[in-house]
Amino acid sequence: MSFNALLARRAGIDTYQQPVVYLRSDCDVCKAEGFQSQAQVEVTSDGRHLLAVLHQVSGNWLRNDEIALSESAWNLMGASEGDELVVRHPPVLDSLTHLRSKLHGERLHYAALRALMDDVSRGRVPDIHLASFVTMCAGDGLDLEETVALTRAMVDVGERLDWGMSPVVDKHCIGGLPGNRTTLIVVPIVAACGVVMPKTSSRAITSAAGTADVMETLAPVDLDLAAMRRVVERECGCIVWGNAMRLSPADDMLIRVERPLSIDSEGLMVASILSKKAAMGSQRVLIDIPLGVLTKVRSPAAADRLSRGLVSVGAALGLQVQTVFTDGSQPVGRGVGPALEAMDVMAVLERRADAPQDLRDRALLLAGLILEMSGKAAPERGNLMAREVLDDGRALAKFIAICEAQGGLRVPPRAAHVRSVRAPVDGMVSAIDTRLVARTAKLAGAPRDPAAGASMHVRVSDRVKRDDPLYTLHAQSLGALQYALSFVHSQLPIVRIDAGVGMASVTAP
Amino acid sequence: MSFNALLARRAGIDTYQQPVVYLRSDCDVCKAEGFQSQAQVEVTSDGRHLLAVLHQVSGNWLRNDEIALSESAWNLMGASEGDELVVRHPPVLDSLTHLRSKLHGERLHYAALRALMDDVSRGRVPDIHLASFVTMCAGDGLDLEETVALTRAMVDVGERLDWGMSPVVDKHCIGGLPGNRTTLIVVPIVAACGVVMPKTSSRAITSAAGTADVMETLAPVDLDLAAMRRVVERECGCIVWGNAMRLSPADDMLIRVERPLSIDSEGLMVASILSKKAAMGSQRVLIDIPLGVLTKVRSPAAADRLSRGLVSVGAALGLQVQTVFTDGSQPVGRGVGPALEAMDVMAVLERRADAPQDLRDRALLLAGLILEMSGKAAPERGNLMAREVLDDGRALAKFIAICEAQGGLRVPPRAAHVRSVRAPVDGMVSAIDTRLVARTAKLAGAPRDPAAGASMHVRVSDRVKRDDPLYTLHAQSLGALQYALSFVHSQLPIVRIDAGVGMASVTAP
Repeated sequence: MSFNALLARRAGIDTYQQPVVYLRSDCDVCKAEGFQSQAQVEVTSDGRHLLAVLHQVSGNWLRNDEIALSESAWNLMGASEGDELVVRHPPVLDSLTHLRSKLHGERLHYAALRALMDDVSRGRVPDIHLASFVTMCAGDGLDLEETVALTRAMVDVGERLDWGMSPVVDKHCIGGLPGNRTTLIVVPIVAACGVVMPKTSSRAITSAAGTADVMETLAPVDLDLAAMRRVVERECGCIVWGNAMRLSPADDMLIRVERPLSIDSEGLMVASILSKKAAMGSQRVLIDIPLGVLTKVRSPAAADRLSRGLVSVGAALGLQVQTVFTDGSQPVGRGVGPALEAMDVMAVLERRADAPQDLRDRALLLAGLILEMSGKAAPERGNLMAREVLDDGRALAKFIAICEAQGGLRVPPRAAHVRSVRAPVDGMVSAIDTRLVARTAKLAGAPRDPAAGASMHVRVSDRVKRDDPLYTLHAQSLGALQYALSFVHSQLPIVRIDAGVGMASVTAP
Repeated sequence: MSFNALLARRAGIDTYQQPVVYLRSDCDVCKAEGFQSQAQVEVTSDGRHLLAVLHQVSGNWLRNDEIALSESAWNLMGASEGDELVVRHPPVLDSLTHLRSKLHGERLHYAALRALMDDVSRGRVPDIHLASFVTMCAGDGLDLEETVALTRAMVDVGERLDWGMSPVVDKHCIGGLPGNRTTLIVVPIVAACGVVMPKTSSRAITSAAGTADVMETLAPVDLDLAAMRRVVERECGCIVWGNAMRLSPADDMLIRVERPLSIDSEGLMVASILSKKAAMGSQRVLIDIPLGVLTKVRSPAAADRLSRGLVSVGAALGLQVQTVFTDGSQPVGRGVGPALEAMDVMAVLERRADAPQDLRDRALLLAGLILEMSGKAAPERGNLMAREVLDDGRALAKFIAICEAQGGLRVPPRAAHVRSVRAPVDGMVSAIDTRLVARTAKLAGAPRDPAAGASMHVRVSDRVKRDDPLYTLHAQSLGALQYALSFVHSQLPIVRIDAGVGMASVTAP
């Protein structure tokens, strides 16, 4: 074996996107290189190479001549059991010198950000360095020019799609709001009008369902780029999972650190959103900003500032961006969970009498604005055009056609077990905690079990009587149902009922 | 078992000071809480609690009802195999809000820094948040007042010693220089003059030997506080390992992140050094700042700025601080490695003819300055007093007495295998790479094998002939010796020889 070489072994440990390798502390390589735990090491083999964090093992599950790799390290390295891997001190990353110059008050230019984002996207930059960068960008740490340069750099280190058609429109919603599944209605309306809308969506990260999870209960979403192109060329639109596209890969790495740091950086948020859209080949983008006490953007002033940043940076990148502020105070529609949300969407598309009106209204608002941005509808006429397309069944037909093109329309599954939670008193619904709704739906099994989740029977300001059902939990196993129920009973109520209001008319003089 | 409880298991994985727990991704707790890998989780059991990073396991070494703990998590938790541990989302740390206000331009005050350092010292603050804090402190990110407040906060969250004697003196050296083992000579000189000098030292972290490692080849160093007090009360001085004292524990956590980030923060460096000294109960502190191309402080201007910061912050904390700039261009003495350095120290104390003059001179310089600071020697008379104490044998007698008081004088071990590296040409020694010397000594086994290391036979400007020995490698096994030699041959030379100089006088007209 060559100097510093060890035999590869899959550790079966998931460290998310941070690659970790495991070596015995008493192995020759650790002794020779003087590695400490948490050291950054370079692993190479036949031209492949990887930067990883070292964790030293004293237990007996690893031999002295072995190196175990975490799942992300294993995949990034493309390793096989028994491969000879060489472990060394990593080369000094030139891009990190740019971090230091930013610290010393210099502004970051495109070349520096490009080098940095290149290393970030390849997983070469350790988390603590990412955290340092995010800290420098905090608040208004990036000015407009730097934000433009960062967005460009993030686009340029990944793939960028070109549809050969114009205009290509897109939408984005900032911060999750349970049940806000407008995309599945907006895309078929817009596409039915002949406007190109190739939509990539994400799966749930911390929520009960991502748009891709919901769509997957109705049609396949795991399409590669060639398949996605065929769908869009035939139907003008698609709703697929964006993961396979490698669009703005640096953004994914930064988000991993931004989320736990919970440092707000307007520059990073703008760069994150717009880099994905630019990489996707979008030209006109509508951005939905729900405002509420538990949403990402909580005040009209903050929404306004963010909106101006999005529009300016978009313009610099050749993207026409428009924003719309919507109500983020309670869940949208009824269902929270992949299949339950899909049923809400189908009810709207099928124009059923019991379709949730709020989901329909929001989808028409967004579709109308996109039709106006695309030039298909005259100013102020988009909403009407969208309503016609929805009401005459063209949107439903287009949605079915898109599903068929993506691999075939499916019927969303139904959960094996349901249980309703009822009002403990008469009164008026004063608030619904959107975070607890999402958490409960997850405990019931969403999005892993697509049929699981919660369906809401009330909205804020509804009057309820004692024992009226407030919401119903859906689960695939009795265990999961019990688990979600025990959580519900251990927390503040998800649906808050103001009993005083009901009394007021009785007790008032 | 209670809600979210799992059975403890020791993973035998060393993640340095970052506690990590391992759960199966398909266990009930992960599903229920919606944990992702790299999530911060709180682990509790019978009032004990711990914050740790979660790594999810898909391999079959862990069961669904088990939680495995990394070494640091295991020790911090004081866990035993099979303990029932409950895993939850961690509480929101109030202290982190202070990080955000600093980001928004507010200055940090004592109360905020105290709360933050308290959480830091208890291991509650994840690495990426530490990295964010270090980034905010970068360069001159902390002003003088903030540095004073931070230093106080770091002292106040740990133990603080009070010797009931005055003055208590101390010394510190910034940045390692191989062989610079003056402490073992300075302490007995100063203590022999009746000045109290309770010295705690560190073991090697990245170097071939720490002062504690060197002292350990001559006497026990792993004393608890009570034992240390007895030594100091009897002998006026001691040289012990500082680890058990829990002095400025937050500093250790910050250093773990500062080192890989390699962000220079003058405020953090000053707070780090002075918090340890203040916690130690020191009153007058001499700080040795070696200047060289490979040392931590590389220019007289930087040393000057740092020096002013140390003196001002020290004054605010009631510490009298003085700095001295020394030559950091080559190793001090001959030995590099615990026992080899101990032999240099003993040669100086025993006034042997072959004692390394540079080590003797440096020790006399520092001891003289400390004697002046303590008031024991008149200004400009310290060096003379130190020399008298060294030359008449009082320093040796005091050193032996200190060693006896610490548990008994020992004879440093000698290595089983030695091999000299010889000059390839005639010429003059133009440079010695201090970093490569340290690395080679470590490959030979230092400081794990106390007898291992390197001994230098030449100094910069020495003339050598071809085949003269330049340095000798010492190792306990032939394998380690071969390993260090193969490293030596794979690198640029440790000792650079300028052959042209030897020629010059011959070829000059």
